[in-house]
Amino acid sequence: MKQSIGAKTLAFPTPVWIVGTYDKEEKPNVMTVAWGGICCSKPESINISLRKATYSYGNIVERKAFTISIPSEKHVKEADYFGIATGKKVDKFAATGLTPVKSDLVDAPYVKEFPLILECKLIHTIEVGLHTQFIGEIVDVKADESVLGGKGLPDIEKVRPILFGPEIRTYHGIGKYLGQAFSIGREIS
Amino acid sequence: MKQSIGAKTLAFPTPVWIVGTYDKEEKPNVMTVAWGGICCSKPESINISLRKATYSYGNIVERKAFTISIPSEKHVKEADYFGIATGKKVDKFAATGLTPVKSDLVDAPYVKEFPLILECKLIHTIEVGLHTQFIGEIVDVKADESVLGGKGLPDIEKVRPILFGPEIRTYHGIGKYLGQAFSIGREIS
Repeated sequence: MKQSIGAKTLAFPTPVWIVGTYDKEEKPNVMTVAWGGICCSKPESINISLRKATYSYGNIVERKAFTISIPSEKHVKEADYFGIATGKKVDKFAATGLTPVKSDLVDAPYVKEFPLILECKLIHTIEVGLHTQFIGEIVDVKADESVLGGKGLPDIEKVRPILFGPEIRTYHGIGKYLGQAFSIGREIS
Repeated sequence: MKQSIGAKTLAFPTPVWIVGTYDKEEKPNVMTVAWGGICCSKPESINISLRKATYSYGNIVERKAFTISIPSEKHVKEADYFGIATGKKVDKFAATGLTPVKSDLVDAPYVKEFPLILECKLIHTIEVGLHTQFIGEIVDVKADESVLGGKGLPDIEKVRPILFGPEIRTYHGIGKYLGQAFSIGREIS
């Protein structure tokens, strides 16, 4: 029996992604987003949603670029902190001891210590309501050599990304391998 | 050292969500999407991206509604099948033995056997490129009583959602609890 629990932003899983931007004084900032996803295969694009009140919102409007740094679970505390503190008041890199690296492709910084990086150019801005959705074209993906697996692609079990559970407000790691996509369903038909 | 791996739709984690729609003859259809995410807190909204070639694309344009059924890992084969087969040729509910249920709030069906359901009204359509992004307002969330935990909210460890790794094409379950959001980062500052 299904129970109605109301209109809520409640879907599993949501990602834990760190958005990197520069402000007008070239100060690098990072903030955590869980509202986001991939949204197009050609051009390769990703969407993130931010409230206008955030420091990063103004930076993206100004610079028309952002990065996404995907943290491993060992950095879950830093990822949480990046969503609590505001770049208006603090230097989040200095507070955590993590290292900003200037992207060579877009006008934004990423987090050196995080294993998987997307460099994005802003291509669409959609006003949805409390949040503004930014769609960025992914111009490059960069990965630490230590997380690469077969075919030169990142191994998700080495990256160890973090998941967020909205409403219940919990972080989880990734679990067991369940099967190969576009393959295990073929036995049904 | 970071290695460039090119412009790819490569971010972890992405979800495995089953989009439910009706066609003109009231035939219920389902398809799997990994391109999607929550995109706004007020109105509560979620985005999914579909290619125009899919059967579901036309159904959403016509009905202006869709559901998202979130499968548990025990249904990973059915979830994969829903992304392989096309509703143009087959009845995916009949093929899997799963049960369509008509939403009482939006003009779309959901999957009875899946534990967490979002019922959505189409509010925005954005042409990004190969994919069209549909933004739906979440008018209700419904959950099986068996997956509810504290505060009447779904327990992610009971829902057991599936994650998809783009490019590497693997499915994974959720893993260990890593901490409470908006909390564990407070010790940094």
